[in-house]
Amino acid sequence: MHNDKERAGNFFEDFNLGQVIRHGTHRTMTDGDASVYLALTGARQAAHSSTTAAALMGFANRPLDDLLVFNIAFGKTVPDISLNAIANLGYAEVRFVEPVYAGDTLHCESVILGLKENSSRKSGVIYVRSTCYDQNDRTVLSWVRWVMVHKRRTASRAPEPFVPGFDDVVPLNQLVTHASVSSRDALDEWCESTGSRSMWEHFSVGDRINHLAGMTIEEADHMSATRLYQNNSRVHFDALVMRDSPSGRRLVYGGHVISVCRALSYDGLENVVSIMAINAGAHVAPTVAGDTLYAFTEVIQKWKLPGRTDMGALRLRLVGLKNAMPAEVDSRHADASGGVYHPNVVLDLDYTVLMPRQHIG
Amino acid sequence: MHNDKERAGNFFEDFNLGQVIRHGTHRTMTDGDASVYLALTGARQAAHSSTTAAALMGFANRPLDDLLVFNIAFGKTVPDISLNAIANLGYAEVRFVEPVYAGDTLHCESVILGLKENSSRKSGVIYVRSTCYDQNDRTVLSWVRWVMVHKRRTASRAPEPFVPGFDDVVPLNQLVTHASVSSRDALDEWCESTGSRSMWEHFSVGDRINHLAGMTIEEADHMSATRLYQNNSRVHFDALVMRDSPSGRRLVYGGHVISVCRALSYDGLENVVSIMAINAGAHVAPTVAGDTLYAFTEVIQKWKLPGRTDMGALRLRLVGLKNAMPAEVDSRHADASGGVYHPNVVLDLDYTVLMPRQHIG
Amino acid sequence: MHNDKERAGNFFEDFNLGQVIRHGTHRTMTDGDASVYLALTGARQAAHSSTTAAALMGFANRPLDDLLVFNIAFGKTVPDISLNAIANLGYAEVRFVEPVYAGDTLHCESVILGLKENSSRKSGVIYVRSTCYDQNDRTVLSWVRWVMVHKRRTASRAPEPFVPGFDDVVPLNQLVTHASVSSRDALDEWCESTGSRSMWEHFSVGDRINHLAGMTIEEADHMSATRLYQNNSRVHFDALVMRDSPSGRRLVYGGHVISVCRALSYDGLENVVSIMAINAGAHVAPTVAGDTLYAFTEVIQKWKLPGRTDMGALRLRLVGLKNAMPAEVDSRHADASGGVYHPNVVLDLDYTVLMPRQHIG
Repeated sequence: MHNDKERAGNFFEDFNLGQVIRHGTHRTMTDGDASVYLALTGARQAAHSSTTAAALMGFANRPLDDLLVFNIAFGKTVPDISLNAIANLGYAEVRFVEPVYAGDTLHCESVILGLKENSSRKSGVIYVRSTCYDQNDRTVLSWVRWVMVHKRRTASRAPEPFVPGFDDVVPLNQLVTHASVSSRDALDEWCESTGSRSMWEHFSVGDRINHLAGMTIEEADHMSATRLYQNNSRVHFDALVMRDSPSGRRLVYGGHVISVCRALSYDGLENVVSIMAINAGAHVAPTVAGDTLYAFTEVIQKWKLPGRTDMGALRLRLVGLKNAMPAEVDSRHADASGGVYHPNVVLDLDYTVLMPRQHIG
Repeated sequence: MHNDKERAGNFFEDFNLGQVIRHGTHRTMTDGDASVYLALTGARQAAHSSTTAAALMGFANRPLDDLLVFNIAFGKTVPDISLNAIANLGYAEVRFVEPVYAGDTLHCESVILGLKENSSRKSGVIYVRSTCYDQNDRTVLSWVRWVMVHKRRTASRAPEPFVPGFDDVVPLNQLVTHASVSSRDALDEWCESTGSRSMWEHFSVGDRINHLAGMTIEEADHMSATRLYQNNSRVHFDALVMRDSPSGRRLVYGGHVISVCRALSYDGLENVVSIMAINAGAHVAPTVAGDTLYAFTEVIQKWKLPGRTDMGALRLRLVGLKNAMPAEVDSRHADASGGVYHPNVVLDLDYTVLMPRQHIG
Repeated sequence: MHNDKERAGNFFEDFNLGQVIRHGTHRTMTDGDASVYLALTGARQAAHSSTTAAALMGFANRPLDDLLVFNIAFGKTVPDISLNAIANLGYAEVRFVEPVYAGDTLHCESVILGLKENSSRKSGVIYVRSTCYDQNDRTVLSWVRWVMVHKRRTASRAPEPFVPGFDDVVPLNQLVTHASVSSRDALDEWCESTGSRSMWEHFSVGDRINHLAGMTIEEADHMSATRLYQNNSRVHFDALVMRDSPSGRRLVYGGHVISVCRALSYDGLENVVSIMAINAGAHVAPTVAGDTLYAFTEVIQKWKLPGRTDMGALRLRLVGLKNAMPAEVDSRHADASGGVYHPNVVLDLDYTVLMPRQHIG
């Protein structure tokens, strides 16, 4: 009964260095996607919530939430890249290049940058750069991830290992800024729309914000989000199959964890205009329904933007926790140096955001 | 680690008589919000379901559901007003002034009308009038609520108590009517779109309608609705924190209870065009996931509208019940006179709707 | 307290042969509905996901998912036809006539084609043809279903039984094709958007595809879908009432089962452009929350379309299973011949789809 129409996804043997994969399921983004995203994550970022706020930052229209776009783009790569993944090990060089508006149609392409069989010979790691384009073939987003994938057969021969290097941080000269503040009045109105006057100058390297909000995850919520992204990885949906897995149950898609933690981190970061880059990211531990997520943010670095006085960049570390309040987890223990994270850490995300400055020309 | 970026919300001490608060999170409303609202509440009112039905009532486009607008507006006030609320005690003088269409952007402002410390000195009640504006600063909605809020410290001195008075009912001359019926044909087509010919004349003061439908509430449903409204009150979302609360679990946002009960009350009230006012409202008991909601409606008052033969107003009482059918609860026991409600009553809402009349010019 | 405003739905006695019923709740379809549908079903069909893909198939815009339209239309008939239904016994002659786009407003009408009291005299079966129209009164969809409905009183006299006959299959000359492929380039681009090159020629009668994906159903998911369709049948929503039913709990709306099974069947059928007809369908067993759905597809028949070289029709059988993988259920046991289905079969759907051909002019 088995035939070639049963799409079982690719295994480690199916990938080759330099291979280019064009992904299916092109997707037109709409205001409907924005509303469903809000309903599932509780996101409140001003530029994505309001056309008038977006206009104050110089956008032609309300740009869709950066992480909605990221998750949609990611979902397209799943059938070809990670349907047989054991784990999504990390992200790097995630660059948000163009804002996406309702009506834009997205499609993605990936290239295999590296491969390395595991010592068990049962699986291997692939390093993939994926790029998301709009209907005019403009790049809107690109990212690297490395994924542990099952081999079809332990005995099959692996290619020569090749592990590429990635930037620790997306450098300043690769950050793209579409927003701008035209006047002090525009800035004042923006601050009204966000409810905060904490701008770029207000933050110092080393600041830590313990976000108070928590969000308990339901099966219906994470599955709806993951379906919205047309991500068809069965670990998120099939309770029967997952009964025999280590967790014994469905796993929450990591991108949903990122979205929820970012939504939790809104308070204190109200004036963030957009995400410019994700420098590094790791899903430190799995999340399942019933877990309650919390988050804290640390300010890692501050950059002025060349030739700009209206905007600056902040490099932030967003740490996601399950079933533990931020006050219970100190920054050292949310750290893999020494190889040990606090057992309640689920997400460690290093990312760069755009934020208005107080003094404009 | 505590710093001013940890937004802990306002406490009783932070409010002053006459204080004006401009709320953040401006919000552009879309057709996507309308669809999510339908999916979470089961609302079926004709003018909000269909552009052609809305046109028959003289609307420029399909107005968004009045309670969707109310809940969105309410959500904006939460971070400043009720993040530390113990209970939302009541509503008054809720006036629906302008219809809201997809594309409109809403923002809100509140003024503190009254304050009174509780005898325990641990908390106090604040009386707040909030107003919701569109992108042209036109008022679309205003309402009063009073909220019991924690004090930061029992010892802190309270201001002179001031308890304002409110109208028992939004008077006829403050009701705004945007709808109109241009012809008998338009009325006939409208009735086809609603599936009912029960118009204003059909209702008598004292009528009671026991709505047959029931709706069991799931955690994912009430949380998604509350997130759609960008209402970030933690009591709705954080199961871990709520484990130590009196209910032992997350509470359903009262506005979701209102929306669900109103959706349940559709049968028998199909020809309602819009909500003109909420005269008074109380969340009589908490609702949690697993509860099944039912509703009955009583007709309290009927008004002709001055100079209008096409439309009339009905003042209704919507009583929401949990885990008890309407037939089990008589009208006397759904009443706080004598101070005792039937234990299954969760909502007592006195509101005024617009309904077409049978005989037009 | 009972009065005529308590809409209790129609009973067997209320239906007459030839009776025409115009259904309420006209509905404007939007991109928001499309997004909610994706989030609840995981649908990935190309023409419904992307305006650019839809344009390659000659559509003026992105048509809404055929099953979203079907479920919305079906929902309108529930208050009048099946509020007191015991079971939805079968479908026939479901014809998809016009694509529906965001902005279209749908309404429905039904005619009673047949009636037959059951031997118990407690219930009867009604045969109904329903037709869905757009705002210009063009037919977009029509279908027949037969439903077992409670009688109000066992003693009441039944009309002369009349059981109409239906076509086993919607004949080729009644299938309507709106799509077309204008060039080989368009076809190539389409295949990129679907991620598959398996076209009409690739399928043979007798092929069976065991779809790998599974989807566990949550209460919030099926209720949200059913509310989106404004289907108010209480068996889907009211856990308290259903506690005393045979299942002891809420039942998943059969249309949601169809939508989920079709979404599961995407892999292997990526190039399907649209559903042209449902020839026959039966909900073989109930589905409840917690069940995990799987599906397999069999190719029953292949048709060339008269005068067309760009497109062909495939008649498929979609079998939905609960809590059993397709590999565990052979085709014979998913069959009512002999009257016995495998106990895990929930859906048996015979439908016809439109698919591009490899060789175009």
